[in-house]
Amino acid sequence: MSDLAAGTVNHQVRLAARPSGLPGPEVWEHTEEPVGEPGEGRFVVRVTHISLDPAMRGWMNDVRSYVPPVGIGEVFRALAGGEVVASRHPDFAVGDHVTGQFGAQEYAESDGSGVQKVDVGAAPMATHLAVLGMTGMTAYFGLFDVGAMAEGETVLVSGAAGAVGSVVGQLARIKGGRVVGIAGGAEKCRFLVEELGFDAAIDYKAEDVRKGIRAAAPDGVDVYFDNVGGEILDAALTRLRRGARVVLCGAISQYNAGGRPVGPANYMSLLVNRARMEGYVVFDYADRYGEAAAEMAGWLRDGRLRSQEDVVSGAVTDFGDTLLRLFRGDNTGKLVLQIA
Amino acid sequence: MSDLAAGTVNHQVRLAARPSGLPGPEVWEHTEEPVGEPGEGRFVVRVTHISLDPAMRGWMNDVRSYVPPVGIGEVFRALAGGEVVASRHPDFAVGDHVTGQFGAQEYAESDGSGVQKVDVGAAPMATHLAVLGMTGMTAYFGLFDVGAMAEGETVLVSGAAGAVGSVVGQLARIKGGRVVGIAGGAEKCRFLVEELGFDAAIDYKAEDVRKGIRAAAPDGVDVYFDNVGGEILDAALTRLRRGARVVLCGAISQYNAGGRPVGPANYMSLLVNRARMEGYVVFDYADRYGEAAAEMAGWLRDGRLRSQEDVVSGAVTDFGDTLLRLFRGDNTGKLVLQIA
Repeated sequence: MSDLAAGTVNHQVRLAARPSGLPGPEVWEHTEEPVGEPGEGRFVVRVTHISLDPAMRGWMNDVRSYVPPVGIGEVFRALAGGEVVASRHPDFAVGDHVTGQFGAQEYAESDGSGVQKVDVGAAPMATHLAVLGMTGMTAYFGLFDVGAMAEGETVLVSGAAGAVGSVVGQLARIKGGRVVGIAGGAEKCRFLVEELGFDAAIDYKAEDVRKGIRAAAPDGVDVYFDNVGGEILDAALTRLRRGARVVLCGAISQYNAGGRPVGPANYMSLLVNRARMEGYVVFDYADRYGEAAAEMAGWLRDGRLRSQEDVVSGAVTDFGDTLLRLFRGDNTGKLVLQIA
Repeated sequence: MSDLAAGTVNHQVRLAARPSGLPGPEVWEHTEEPVGEPGEGRFVVRVTHISLDPAMRGWMNDVRSYVPPVGIGEVFRALAGGEVVASRHPDFAVGDHVTGQFGAQEYAESDGSGVQKVDVGAAPMATHLAVLGMTGMTAYFGLFDVGAMAEGETVLVSGAAGAVGSVVGQLARIKGGRVVGIAGGAEKCRFLVEELGFDAAIDYKAEDVRKGIRAAAPDGVDVYFDNVGGEILDAALTRLRRGARVVLCGAISQYNAGGRPVGPANYMSLLVNRARMEGYVVFDYADRYGEAAAEMAGWLRDGRLRSQEDVVSGAVTDFGDTLLRLFRGDNTGKLVLQIA
């Protein structure tokens, strides 16, 4: 079956060059291709929402990581949501709403690998890319599994107004923790406390973070969920409680810095406090996504969890400019490009 | 009972000033006191062996740590071994050989807290301060508990010719691991491979450590046991296997450096490799020392484990000079000052 009009054009965003520092327009190439009918066992998705994530900056570098870098000339890797518009796949029908790694383009052909059907009646597509998608999974498994958060513990999270951070803080509250967020700007801090129920927020642009942590968590921190690295990680290390867990989720302060990243000078606090610092990659939890999504969907329904999305409406060619919002700290919650 | 001669003098080494950098002679004050008969429930030990440990450098700093700093004017804290020479304690008799925190002095009075009786017929006193003492405990619980080493894994250890490192490598071999040591100088490296049975050794003074690790452990490292910090920690982080454990035991390269310690720039390797870095303090395992000591005594007896001791004979006033050997990398194995 197909709803594809003849002559439909797919606008695409490809990686043209590897950036040093912030990825400017020179990094991107915009291309067009005709959209063909899918082959046997395959289907075509019209992309309506593209997820923008800090990890994308890492995929631009030509270095070994948990996934290979995006190659020069390739459509840029991105999680996205959309609607099946043509199908020769037995499990996907025209009209199905799906999420998957469709890339920064308007149309994607797929064999169904890694593709999830989603119910856009139950929650809007942006939410399926946010709390109910990889963002939510990253928060859930990072806090509960890697961080092993227990009821009554004090949780500190950086990048707290960002996609993952805003979920981490809410999950910690739901599980009976005391939650302190670190974010940039008074408005983000107000949002965390007044709208998301954080116990306290520290504005790293206006306050000494170390003093802020001491004031907001005078007995120290049991779980520090790090999205930013750099000086904030170093400040957090000075306020660990005995047996604390530092969850390494990201290091956005370092992604566009020149030269080598800055290591945490205070890492020996891990020894003094018998603490650990541990990294993870959410894909390793794929066989438990269903369990986490079901639990979070319940919390969404009963209003204890809020999915904060920052949806930018535009063309796929706005992808590069929209991505920069992440590194400027302009967004609150999950950044999504909705294809107008 | 008492074997104390009237007029016996106790020579002591006290902390006179807090050093910056290497602790030179200005840091120490040598004092004398008469030795009195012990009070009720107490006993006097004549110290024969004083343990010298990298951690002592940290105790000189006026900073919060897992133990309070040594106060200015106090006899310097040290584990030591000796013989009971006067006792009014029901559990300790004149002639008993004991280890405990007797400090850098010739005689110590004790109420028995933290004091162990040792069998100097089974192993010499220096060995009770080495493999059978805190050094051995530090290696054992760090490798097996914090590092969770499993059979067949590749273990990398820095400071490998030092007191703890030389035991870690041997324990990893006994448990069926492949062991690579990092040490300074060809002679130490030869010693590790030829005498202690390490699979390979890297001379950090002569080789590029990162390349050396790649050559010696081409499939990567499962457990990295870090005694040194600094550039060697950073090099090790680049060669972690998935799920690796970095055990933070010490950071001797940083103890005498000016300014802030250098943090591990490559810490995000923990994320990519789903790895963890964890600190510990051996005192937390006190209730399991007996178990570990019994197992290690068995390995000593059957020749699978060797206690390497570097025993310097001298007066208690040689304590400060002897300590510097640790920071110059002059010693191989456990450094002990034997009171002549």
